[in-house]
Amino acid sequence: MSIFIDACFGKPVTRTPVWIMRQAGRYLPEYRAVREKVKFLDLCKSPELAAQVSLQPVDILGVDAAILFSDILVVPEAMGMELILEDHGPQFPQPLRGQADVGKLHVPDPETELRYVGDAIRLLRKSLKVPLIGFCGAPWTLAAYMIEGKTSRSFEKAKAALFSDEALAHVLLTKITDSLIAYLNMQLAAGAQALQIFDSWAGALGPEDYARFGAPYIARLIAGLKRDGQPVIVFGVETGELLGQLAKTGADVVGVDWRVPLDEARKRVGPKVALQGNLDPASLFLPLEKLRPRIARVLEQARAAGPGHIFNLGHGILPGTPVANVQALVQQVHEGLAK
Amino acid sequence: MSIFIDACFGKPVTRTPVWIMRQAGRYLPEYRAVREKVKFLDLCKSPELAAQVSLQPVDILGVDAAILFSDILVVPEAMGMELILEDHGPQFPQPLRGQADVGKLHVPDPETELRYVGDAIRLLRKSLKVPLIGFCGAPWTLAAYMIEGKTSRSFEKAKAALFSDEALAHVLLTKITDSLIAYLNMQLAAGAQALQIFDSWAGALGPEDYARFGAPYIARLIAGLKRDGQPVIVFGVETGELLGQLAKTGADVVGVDWRVPLDEARKRVGPKVALQGNLDPASLFLPLEKLRPRIARVLEQARAAGPGHIFNLGHGILPGTPVANVQALVQQVHEGLAK
Repeated sequence: MSIFIDACFGKPVTRTPVWIMRQAGRYLPEYRAVREKVKFLDLCKSPELAAQVSLQPVDILGVDAAILFSDILVVPEAMGMELILEDHGPQFPQPLRGQADVGKLHVPDPETELRYVGDAIRLLRKSLKVPLIGFCGAPWTLAAYMIEGKTSRSFEKAKAALFSDEALAHVLLTKITDSLIAYLNMQLAAGAQALQIFDSWAGALGPEDYARFGAPYIARLIAGLKRDGQPVIVFGVETGELLGQLAKTGADVVGVDWRVPLDEARKRVGPKVALQGNLDPASLFLPLEKLRPRIARVLEQARAAGPGHIFNLGHGILPGTPVANVQALVQQVHEGLAK
Repeated sequence: MSIFIDACFGKPVTRTPVWIMRQAGRYLPEYRAVREKVKFLDLCKSPELAAQVSLQPVDILGVDAAILFSDILVVPEAMGMELILEDHGPQFPQPLRGQADVGKLHVPDPETELRYVGDAIRLLRKSLKVPLIGFCGAPWTLAAYMIEGKTSRSFEKAKAALFSDEALAHVLLTKITDSLIAYLNMQLAAGAQALQIFDSWAGALGPEDYARFGAPYIARLIAGLKRDGQPVIVFGVETGELLGQLAKTGADVVGVDWRVPLDEARKRVGPKVALQGNLDPASLFLPLEKLRPRIARVLEQARAAGPGHIFNLGHGILPGTPVANVQALVQQVHEGLAK
């Protein structure tokens, strides 16, 4: 196997593996060259192009894992919602507005309705020499998008809808979860070697709400997977108070944002899961002599946290990030801390 | 004195005091009626109108404290930066871009350059029967706005500027802090009976960065105040990992967002400061029968946290919030928990 997979299971590794959330993205000139010719959603739906941009960071950065280029919102689209994905942010022009809208959603057959994702995975597996991570959004995050219609600062529509009608919330979150189980199982069958569940808006919920509307559906999703040694990573931002819940979902790895030092995160997740993270993405805009000590600090905190660390950022890489700094990061993580 | 002031100092009170962050704001029809006739910044600069809208929530909601209607960005404006304040968010068209720009900023004389704030406070004190809270933004939050030029999701420009040149960061943050000391002392002299320092973007910084660029300047600001029994509240969002630092700034009260239950917050701030918060602002969009148990839950957690609680939301009240729900909230807090 690979150091990435071993680290996900907390096994001893010769060096810390590293990949970067959103590593196939706008900061790369090679990615922008592809995007000039094709719209975002068309890129997601072209297996050849999606595979091409997924490979770019592996070649350019030397990361230890590839992640499928796609978007978490292709699942709601396949469930029946019109989706507009442009650079100013995704939009559902007709967000969910009640029971009738939820009733119309269907659980897609991923082998046909999301086949382009499986095709991209199969293509990637032919040329990749590092493990391939498949992914999806978490039920709460997808539900929030589907109700708000777009990204939000406060999610008052999503919260009002779910908190005021728990029966409806359960129907919607279950339908999403069932769709995700089939979707991730399709990705595993196509060749995904690890999975990451992005609960991007987890931190919008207080701990008691997350215990009702967030974590249980992730646990149900993970329990529904037909795995054969593929680890599952769960990640969200602003999850300081939720790390314990995330660790109990059945995930092998919990991603941590840059707000919680990894040694502190360890106290909250317990000894059984690995940790992924957690350099502040803004650090990559610093000159190298200021960036390097920050990378070393994450490695130190990870060492203090004990076995099971995958180096990553605490959130997705930002547009405009200098590529040379990301290359330097990968190299420094590979060299590791002085003994 | 008042129950609000007593609660700020952890003294026994007959019932829990309550006020609402951004209580003078767009959710109130009476506020919108004033705003129709005047631009936001002109409203801030008209003592009569600022006093008028500051009084509205006291009359309409029955809250236990008033807060001056103003904006944290009037201080950078007085320091020499052009400011545009419109409903789609504030903007500095010429953000700080280096040492020369920072050098040009001056520490304003608040008695002349921010006199309209003092005038509004003096007007308000003539008619108010509850304590008046003055306020300012915290140095880090103001610096972040001044460098980014507008609100940001990731603050990479502000972080790159401050983290890469700590000497320049110190000059800028000190200049802002000196301006704020004079500004808050002017507010105290004019009659402010409590002060709140809004570190809105505190949570964008990891704990080690906050210990260098955030908390020390708040501590210096508080140490510079000429107080005569007026409590100081510090508040930020996404501050779960920063509550201990905030409690050590010399503040009497630490505001908590809805992500950290108050009894958990107590463990992080220690026994000596009071807590303010922390209902999720989105809760106010729920029907009353769903809202009431959430208010009761905050009161329960506050009781478990021990003496010193001011009820508030975990962040500013949202536009579109039903006024009747806010009135019901104030009434329920006043009635308190059953013994």
